[in-house]
Amino acid sequence: MEVTHEHEDGPMADLTTLAKNELETLRSELQQTFDEKKAQGLALDMTRGKPCSEQLDLSNDLLANLDKNEFSSPGGVDCRNYGGLDGLPEMKQIFADLLGVAPEQVVVGGNSSLAMMQNAVSCAMSHGVPGSAKPWGKEEKVTFLCPVPGYDRHFTICSHAGIDMIAVPTDENGPDMDKVESLVKDDATIKGIWIVPKYANPTGNTCSDETVDRLAGMKTAAPDFRILWDNAYAVHHLTDSPDQLKNLYDACAAAGHSDRALMFCSFSKVTFAGAGVSAVAASDANVEWVKSHLFVQTIGPDKVNQLRHIKFFKNFAGVEAHMKKHAGILKPKFDAVLAILDEELSGKGVATWTTPRGGYFISLDVMHGCAKAVVARAADAGVKLTKAGATFPRGEDPSDCNIRLAPTFPSTDDVLAATRVVALCIQLVAVEKLLAG
Amino acid sequence: MEVTHEHEDGPMADLTTLAKNELETLRSELQQTFDEKKAQGLALDMTRGKPCSEQLDLSNDLLANLDKNEFSSPGGVDCRNYGGLDGLPEMKQIFADLLGVAPEQVVVGGNSSLAMMQNAVSCAMSHGVPGSAKPWGKEEKVTFLCPVPGYDRHFTICSHAGIDMIAVPTDENGPDMDKVESLVKDDATIKGIWIVPKYANPTGNTCSDETVDRLAGMKTAAPDFRILWDNAYAVHHLTDSPDQLKNLYDACAAAGHSDRALMFCSFSKVTFAGAGVSAVAASDANVEWVKSHLFVQTIGPDKVNQLRHIKFFKNFAGVEAHMKKHAGILKPKFDAVLAILDEELSGKGVATWTTPRGGYFISLDVMHGCAKAVVARAADAGVKLTKAGATFPRGEDPSDCNIRLAPTFPSTDDVLAATRVVALCIQLVAVEKLLAG
Repeated sequence: MEVTHEHEDGPMADLTTLAKNELETLRSELQQTFDEKKAQGLALDMTRGKPCSEQLDLSNDLLANLDKNEFSSPGGVDCRNYGGLDGLPEMKQIFADLLGVAPEQVVVGGNSSLAMMQNAVSCAMSHGVPGSAKPWGKEEKVTFLCPVPGYDRHFTICSHAGIDMIAVPTDENGPDMDKVESLVKDDATIKGIWIVPKYANPTGNTCSDETVDRLAGMKTAAPDFRILWDNAYAVHHLTDSPDQLKNLYDACAAAGHSDRALMFCSFSKVTFAGAGVSAVAASDANVEWVKSHLFVQTIGPDKVNQLRHIKFFKNFAGVEAHMKKHAGILKPKFDAVLAILDEELSGKGVATWTTPRGGYFISLDVMHGCAKAVVARAADAGVKLTKAGATFPRGEDPSDCNIRLAPTFPSTDDVLAATRVVALCIQLVAVEKLLAG
Repeated sequence: MEVTHEHEDGPMADLTTLAKNELETLRSELQQTFDEKKAQGLALDMTRGKPCSEQLDLSNDLLANLDKNEFSSPGGVDCRNYGGLDGLPEMKQIFADLLGVAPEQVVVGGNSSLAMMQNAVSCAMSHGVPGSAKPWGKEEKVTFLCPVPGYDRHFTICSHAGIDMIAVPTDENGPDMDKVESLVKDDATIKGIWIVPKYANPTGNTCSDETVDRLAGMKTAAPDFRILWDNAYAVHHLTDSPDQLKNLYDACAAAGHSDRALMFCSFSKVTFAGAGVSAVAASDANVEWVKSHLFVQTIGPDKVNQLRHIKFFKNFAGVEAHMKKHAGILKPKFDAVLAILDEELSGKGVATWTTPRGGYFISLDVMHGCAKAVVARAADAGVKLTKAGATFPRGEDPSDCNIRLAPTFPSTDDVLAATRVVALCIQLVAVEKLLAG
């Protein structure tokens, strides 16, 4: 991996300490570099958390791992026909092992855990959940807590459902639990919280044991409070010493709140992003609730695709072994981003960023009021980034400082080139801001 | 096919004309036959419209028709990755040809058209449809017209959504259009009508051109009225001269009501019941509406399964050729039912039934007040039938006379044996009723 310094005179000092004339000199240097970059006609894309071709190739056996007459599950179910609302037992077992629950607590869905989450919220709005006095949609107001920076699609689900959102800051342990506890204890309109508990989107952080225990045990004014636990990156490690996430369901059950946890996971970033299998795990009451609504919606999920996955993985150990191959492809890309950021921006006082041990993203904070400008500048130089603000409810980052970097899809060379442009734009926008301020 | 008479003294007269002593003699004969049948310990199931193994076998190529490295659509899309919210263009083309619309008017879904229909109703309730003044769920009352006998899952979707249902009788031309027109013209709470337009579930009837034109052109008090056109059996012919269904979308557009039609179809009974592909077709405004909600729910459908179907069928002509093979398997089963019914019940005044030219069901009407008793008797003799009343809203057949026969799943021998039991139970229950009356 080629890692060279743009500025041959070595790392520069904290830009915020420079005098005006130094800033002006720097601006013209940076602008010149920017113009050169732009002239290259780059067309790079780091917008979305999509797996790259090499990752998808790891699962190509799924395309052809059944024979023409191979349609029976290990348990003898004809996977071609209707039925099996909650999934094949062998598929439930794999997800149960992944999420740390009993197979009876799992309902297998289609290719999208996002659809399962949206459906849970939609059914809660139209019918309520176990423990609700009435449908959430009949309440005057429903509010969700949204740890930020977070996943834009969660916020879109809330907006679509007419659910108010309160942003809650996060740190390396997960959401700010002092704030969460103080909000939920008195405000009965707060019915839920979104959490990506492991290798979070976009910070890469994993909830600490204390965070899990406090989420499970906290007093909520709403008797039907739900934690939407989007464990999308449960097995998506980038290191050989994976983060350990405490079992939310067990913690909730121990605290007498077993209905509080709705735990989702997906194989979209394990096998095929568009043709994986998803699942939800929860208490008996919640599972019955999920199935009662699912019954209205479908005669059953795609069991043939489940069969392909069962044959491909055999068991959860098969999933874990498979994920090591993903890590081998992704680690160099993350390393590339981090190396460039470190090289170009360390000590300059204009950006901080996370160093994920798993997941799909790096979260980057630039100077307040600069994120939109940086994303616009990068686009001008041919590098597409996730829209600034996307990591906040309603797309509004009040500090305009957070940028999500998604290095998985482009090649490592492209990731390197794109990150250089990003680092350049961050400095250029920062210098302009310092000069203007 | 063996077709013998149960009663060796030949076809009997109309049971309703028999004297009491004749009825008593007949009752004891029928009861004896019933006891003999019951002693055989039958375990037959004609409850649901499931394809049989031989039908599913027709599509086994789908299990193995891709190579390990075959993941690109004909148009060059990597089907493994995210994206393509409305489906692969080649898949849209096949559905467009099936439904008689342009490909741009098609949105491809997952494995269940029921899920697409439920989702349309759910989104209408939460957000309204193009032309709505407000979400349907914010209206004081929402009503759907439900042609009867009809499909229980449609009624379940309404019950789940809190939608009132008004049953409308049907005949060989479809719903009673005088009644439909008179209801929708003044009652603005009536927002929709369910119709299985071709080879209907359970009558097997196809809407006449006049019915289609009147549905398309009628004045509705609700400006946002929708026809939920569940064209589940569009290509499921049992004869060589298929019924011709007039194009609802064209008729609606010609009448200035292009947003009125939401047309659904599915490959569940074309390829695999659990692993097919579904679609909805509608006006531009409706397609945008469907996609705007779909965007919240998923990153995209399973394009790999679409690719398998595209390769399997190539085009709509491939679908049509495939359906002839289904007919070859199903026709003998339908013929078996019809032959037994004719032989055992013709002229006896205790039952009438439809003679479908396609689809999955035969609709059987027994004497008023007898359907539940017939289904219970049949179950007692080891023959499971669809629950009496299932073909009516809320499961309540006010005349207690309709029974849906589903002959596709069992073997022809089992269909024969089951239908004999049904015919026996119909007579037995009728005689008991006549004696009691």
